[in-house]
Amino acid sequence: MSEKYVDIDTLKYLLYDVHNLEELLKRERFIDHEKESIDMFLDSSKDFADRELFPYFKEMDENPAYHKDGQVYVHKQVETMMKKGGELGFISSSFDYEVGGLQIPLMASTASSYILDAANNHLPGYAGLTQGAAELIIHFADKDLLDKYVPDMLSGNWGGTMCLTEPQAGSSLSDIVTKAIPSEMGYYNISGQKIFISAGDNQYLDNIVHLVLARIEGAPKGTKGISLFIVPKNRKNENGSLEPNDVTSVADFQKMGQKGYCTTHLGFGDKEDCRGWLVGEENKGLSYMFMMMNAARIGVGRAASAIASAAYYASLKYANERPQGRKLLSDGKKNVEESQALIIEHPDVRRMLLLQKAVVEGSMSLVLLAAKYYDLEKSASSDEERLKYNTLLEMIIPVVKTYPSEAGTYSVNNGLQVLGGYGFCEDFILQQYYRDIRISAIYEGTTGIQSQDLLGRKITMNDGKGLHLLMSEVMKTINKASEQNELIEYSKSLGEKLKLCDKILKSLMPHALKGDFEKYLADASVFMEFFSLIIVGWNWLEIASNSSKALTENNKNYDKKFHVSKIETMKYFFEYELPKTSGLSEILMNPSSVTIKKEREILI
Amino acid sequence: MSEKYVDIDTLKYLLYDVHNLEELLKRERFIDHEKESIDMFLDSSKDFADRELFPYFKEMDENPAYHKDGQVYVHKQVETMMKKGGELGFISSSFDYEVGGLQIPLMASTASSYILDAANNHLPGYAGLTQGAAELIIHFADKDLLDKYVPDMLSGNWGGTMCLTEPQAGSSLSDIVTKAIPSEMGYYNISGQKIFISAGDNQYLDNIVHLVLARIEGAPKGTKGISLFIVPKNRKNENGSLEPNDVTSVADFQKMGQKGYCTTHLGFGDKEDCRGWLVGEENKGLSYMFMMMNAARIGVGRAASAIASAAYYASLKYANERPQGRKLLSDGKKNVEESQALIIEHPDVRRMLLLQKAVVEGSMSLVLLAAKYYDLEKSASSDEERLKYNTLLEMIIPVVKTYPSEAGTYSVNNGLQVLGGYGFCEDFILQQYYRDIRISAIYEGTTGIQSQDLLGRKITMNDGKGLHLLMSEVMKTINKASEQNELIEYSKSLGEKLKLCDKILKSLMPHALKGDFEKYLADASVFMEFFSLIIVGWNWLEIASNSSKALTENNKNYDKKFHVSKIETMKYFFEYELPKTSGLSEILMNPSSVTIKKEREILI
Repeated sequence: MSEKYVDIDTLKYLLYDVHNLEELLKRERFIDHEKESIDMFLDSSKDFADRELFPYFKEMDENPAYHKDGQVYVHKQVETMMKKGGELGFISSSFDYEVGGLQIPLMASTASSYILDAANNHLPGYAGLTQGAAELIIHFADKDLLDKYVPDMLSGNWGGTMCLTEPQAGSSLSDIVTKAIPSEMGYYNISGQKIFISAGDNQYLDNIVHLVLARIEGAPKGTKGISLFIVPKNRKNENGSLEPNDVTSVADFQKMGQKGYCTTHLGFGDKEDCRGWLVGEENKGLSYMFMMMNAARIGVGRAASAIASAAYYASLKYANERPQGRKLLSDGKKNVEESQALIIEHPDVRRMLLLQKAVVEGSMSLVLLAAKYYDLEKSASSDEERLKYNTLLEMIIPVVKTYPSEAGTYSVNNGLQVLGGYGFCEDFILQQYYRDIRISAIYEGTTGIQSQDLLGRKITMNDGKGLHLLMSEVMKTINKASEQNELIEYSKSLGEKLKLCDKILKSLMPHALKGDFEKYLADASVFMEFFSLIIVGWNWLEIASNSSKALTENNKNYDKKFHVSKIETMKYFFEYELPKTSGLSEILMNPSSVTIKKEREILI
Repeated sequence: MSEKYVDIDTLKYLLYDVHNLEELLKRERFIDHEKESIDMFLDSSKDFADRELFPYFKEMDENPAYHKDGQVYVHKQVETMMKKGGELGFISSSFDYEVGGLQIPLMASTASSYILDAANNHLPGYAGLTQGAAELIIHFADKDLLDKYVPDMLSGNWGGTMCLTEPQAGSSLSDIVTKAIPSEMGYYNISGQKIFISAGDNQYLDNIVHLVLARIEGAPKGTKGISLFIVPKNRKNENGSLEPNDVTSVADFQKMGQKGYCTTHLGFGDKEDCRGWLVGEENKGLSYMFMMMNAARIGVGRAASAIASAAYYASLKYANERPQGRKLLSDGKKNVEESQALIIEHPDVRRMLLLQKAVVEGSMSLVLLAAKYYDLEKSASSDEERLKYNTLLEMIIPVVKTYPSEAGTYSVNNGLQVLGGYGFCEDFILQQYYRDIRISAIYEGTTGIQSQDLLGRKITMNDGKGLHLLMSEVMKTINKASEQNELIEYSKSLGEKLKLCDKILKSLMPHALKGDFEKYLADASVFMEFFSLIIVGWNWLEIASNSSKALTENNKNYDKKFHVSKIETMKYFFEYELPKTSGLSEILMNPSSVTIKKEREILI
């Protein structure tokens, strides 16, 4: 029996009741699916996670992936994740029928992956990167490349990766130098180094298909000269057999957390025999990669929320079992004759647990909402509709990546504190969640990068039309909640925060208009935190509105306790988290610029 | 050559210029010391830390303390820390002449220990606990016990510990059950289990002197029935030789961080042959222990600040060396022809580094201020003066323990983020600081416990007279700064926060007066964060006031760059940290009580 790491009821409630998956299932693209089949898929995910993922979670931390003699070695469950997971459809489920997928909504596959991530976040990434690489091939490569690579990837026989980062470039992709020299045989000769390649190698799969950003000889400098290549670890001979393609595992980064999920340093073309095949057109590599980035960023937010979920249930269990101290009497003293209280009785412990719950379920809702926009875009029946949902997705995506990562880290930090000294000890699992989740704010674009994207691109895109569209969605929830008695004050409060957001942007915008982008973006990360609280507050108001309605209508899908718990957690969010926006707005509207470098360096 | 882990100039500036150590040295108790001798002591600390501590920091993480066959094994530098450190006076320096100490001010020994902690936080605790245990013996035990134990402890031949926590009791000391049965020989037979005993055992020292809280047979229940005993690992025979005293190392807790600093599970009297000697009077053990607690809590705050310091200089070094990305041009684009900027040029990176600097130096100042109050109390020439400084120390002590721990953790978190992906990798040191510092908010009383102490005891003590005294000290700084042109707005801002604090307490107090202590204390941790920001803001204003004065007077002790950097970091604190008080005050004045347990459990 596994410990509890995710609440399936809450996941289904958000999926079906709050975010209306059944409405989506009526669309042409998803017409073959119904609630029952999705439920079965989720139940099989839970079963797989219970049997094959959760039991190996601690073991994978204790036995990190490692590099030896040009090979990266990983835990045996990597093979199970890929091969059994492949069989069960965890890699292919949301792909189109024509490539062998099941065309289930991303909402449903996100819920499924959420369960897997919560059970053991060291494993689902192997499947996730294979999906991402396959998506790139399907969307942009020629059919013969697709036929050659994709079937083995979606079945879990082969893995896939995305190779962006280079040692000298980091997040600055314009500085990529990996070279691609065209040959007369149609392929390109690839040479260069890539670092931080998740799932970059393992001893179990026959092949790994790397999707590599490189620069074709003579291409323009900067981001405009980057192309995308398929560079398999082993290339297929004409007779169908595999032969090595001069891709070397140089090292495996040893990390503070997520130790079972290898992070590889790869060398391409050390022996001048590494072949790559161009995906789509020359010099368009970065734009292809970015088209896939939204799904990847939803994935990071999802995993972070899932880790925070598992940590919450571990803290909750401890708090429900651990007696310590006594309740305060009305004279401020304690009666030592009384037996000890469970620590869950203490308000300060409850505050920490409510914080965890508010972050976990709020971010779970946010992640599912992003997947919903993705599905609505993909299944849209008109260009207008497609644009609408694409815009909504683009608007929230930096928040979907960042809020679960940052607030999730903070939430797990509180979860560790619930256990006191034991939280710091390896005999308890909280410290592993604490280490594992810390990567989330870094990969697929750090919080700093996401914040620049939010304030620098998304808020300003189409003269603010995207923001306007998103805010009108928020207003729908506010208006609905303003007619529910117990929610009136919360709907008002969120409405005021929208006005505050508007005021902040009016005070920032002149810097952008003057061309002082450094100043405009200097506090982008602070704005991210401010904006995220509004977006997650909106999600919580929507959840509470649903639960309040269910209670009024005496809807029996979930019991009263369930709905009361949702409404109270919303209150916690509005009373303890949302107020942070006040201080953040003061920072954002302060005209000073102490963080901008002056002549005299103050950082000494 | 060691990497930089602490700024000695800043340490000395805070010690001499801001907190006026030389004034203190005029007092009778410290009259034999002068700036030059203190400087020599600090320089020898730095030299020792460079040679004997810093080089082993990573190694001690990679080779944790461990338990085998009833013995805990630690890194060889533990012996160096104790024996060479003992010779150099790191254990005895602040003790009285009559017990072999040097009577240097705690301010100076705190500055010295700060250097050691910053170099390698796994080591100074061995000396620190020996000091604490020796202090207890000196203050409360009979002279023959003092003569028997203290000299070997202060020389570093023997170690010492404090044994409070038991498996079933955790932070709830009233539930201690370790038993002490009087014998006719004057000693007591001790039996019980103690956990989380820092520095509890090692293979290098001949003896470890445990100071153990236990309950004499028939003693009252609760905290009123707890006595304090000396229970050595080895007892001295009449002929002076040592024989085992039935103290067993049962296990060593394996932890997420601070792995070289052992955390031991000790068993006493498994073979019914464990002898303890009563310290002072029966049933007064807890009050003795608490009299030592202030120094211990200063020690935790000091170590947390020191770890954050080391992390800051590691982040700063990286940011000064790592090129990545380009500055934004006035069209919001970047010129790829330009060479890459150093990441320290980017405002978001500067924000993170300034946050680190503000937390590190602000908490360093706070810790030294606490040591100063301690010294002023100890060297007071009248009861009135003694009471004054005791009161000031009592008021700030929960903040001194908590702010460096909580803000330090947050600061190191930002420091790790500065390094991006490398921050998460074991090849870089940030991840070790991140893991190490996390214990600070837990031991010597968790943040929750400190917060109850602050709001429940300190704020209310003597009808608020302590708070009033502390606030009048803050007002002195505000009044001084309000006459310095560039500080006027900051002094105003802090003044307003004092009024806000008053308003919050007026809104909370009715709960206490009504006897609803659960409600009064429910948000104690939130109040702690609020109050800490004011206290550290005050420290920063004092620092800036000094630096501003030095610039005006063209004082040449430090260069202009140094002082400008201090004033700008104060601005960062006031513009980015202090505004958090706005949201925190909203939480504190919200009449709701979502965190207090109702009939229906919402934490599901």
